[in-house]
Amino acid sequence: MSVELIAVEGMPEVRPGDDIATLIATAATVQDGDVLVVTQKIVSKAENQLVTVDPDDPLSHKALVEEESVRVLRRRGDLVISETKHGFVCANAGIDRSNLDDGVAALLPRDSDRSARRIRDRLRDATGVEVGVIVSDTFGRPWRKGLVDVALGCAGIAAVVDLRGTEDAAGHELQVTEVAVADEIAAAAELVMGKADGVPVAIVRGLDASWLRESSVKAEIVRPPAEDLFR
Amino acid sequence: MSVELIAVEGMPEVRPGDDIATLIATAATVQDGDVLVVTQKIVSKAENQLVTVDPDDPLSHKALVEEESVRVLRRRGDLVISETKHGFVCANAGIDRSNLDDGVAALLPRDSDRSARRIRDRLRDATGVEVGVIVSDTFGRPWRKGLVDVALGCAGIAAVVDLRGTEDAAGHELQVTEVAVADEIAAAAELVMGKADGVPVAIVRGLDASWLRESSVKAEIVRPPAEDLFR
Repeated sequence: MSVELIAVEGMPEVRPGDDIATLIATAATVQDGDVLVVTQKIVSKAENQLVTVDPDDPLSHKALVEEESVRVLRRRGDLVISETKHGFVCANAGIDRSNLDDGVAALLPRDSDRSARRIRDRLRDATGVEVGVIVSDTFGRPWRKGLVDVALGCAGIAAVVDLRGTEDAAGHELQVTEVAVADEIAAAAELVMGKADGVPVAIVRGLDASWLRESSVKAEIVRPPAEDLFR
Repeated sequence: MSVELIAVEGMPEVRPGDDIATLIATAATVQDGDVLVVTQKIVSKAENQLVTVDPDDPLSHKALVEEESVRVLRRRGDLVISETKHGFVCANAGIDRSNLDDGVAALLPRDSDRSARRIRDRLRDATGVEVGVIVSDTFGRPWRKGLVDVALGCAGIAAVVDLRGTEDAAGHELQVTEVAVADEIAAAAELVMGKADGVPVAIVRGLDASWLRESSVKAEIVRPPAEDLFR
């Protein structure tokens, strides 16, 4: 079995109101069963989730982080780890200012699962091709240094694949193997996107066909605070 | 740019004392610049990190978890989240019993960076080919459901790639973009390995050549408790 990770190069700069599905269909040849990983940044831009901040006033950015958060978990210096309105636990409420004009910050999409569904639906309308879509973002981890890409939202691809109860090679029942494949696909895609290269979309081709189903990051990956040992 | 993820099929059951590099070289054709992802399970088996537990006595497994831990972070029912001797924060000290005979449990490799170096060195000796090697394992995350594969050790491939200071596409200096590529590569590889299929090795082909350098998960990814906001 093999899977291919393909960078979609030549995407134009995305602006508010742009149709990402059309931009992708123009830049790349997409096939049935492909999963497209689209970075949060261009989704937020297309959905006009842009706000102005005063670049000379750090408090302006800070207030925004508070506004987008429902619960602050930790603070250290300028770093705030919080639970966002959407249920994600991440640094600075996922707000970022890289690859944007001065004085502009991008909020996370309001509902990244919905954003993924829209791109998937529009791509189906435009090309007749049935794909999965993942909206990805870059998160830190509490006990491991370095950032990794994870899934904020998905459509047409499983967020989690449950292998519990499947027999292992030795014939025992497997105990816990709920694999967050949407996060692994987001991480994989990042390997061909780079951070500063302006490649905001990757195609993941050749995934297990049984994973291509309706799903939601919110329902399957976001851990409710009540189940949480660290909040 | 594209990257290929290739499952190495047809590996035999690994036993204590086996030479994983030779098994890989027999099962697959490896090329210069490939990164091999090898699951912790077969590394632990080859290195004879196997211990006996009483399958009818849950306390036997529990005592083992305590023994392998230096600090317990949380407990809930049978689940223990702890910091292992090696510095990893994970469930049940990474000890697992799937794909093993009854009454046998596998501990993590003593030093997974060293395990990765050994496999890399042996493969170079056997075939003349220069590869990177990552030893991977399956970890949970505090705020996200589902498991993902991460790197326990690496050799010949960067654990973290530091893009700080590189200009972004809009000409601003990027602020924080230390990407844990070894974790992303481990996650990517899992997409072709599955959990119950007995595919313990994958080849990742076509990665950015500048990432192929000496590195260490212990030095670059394991977060020291003093830098930690959640321990």
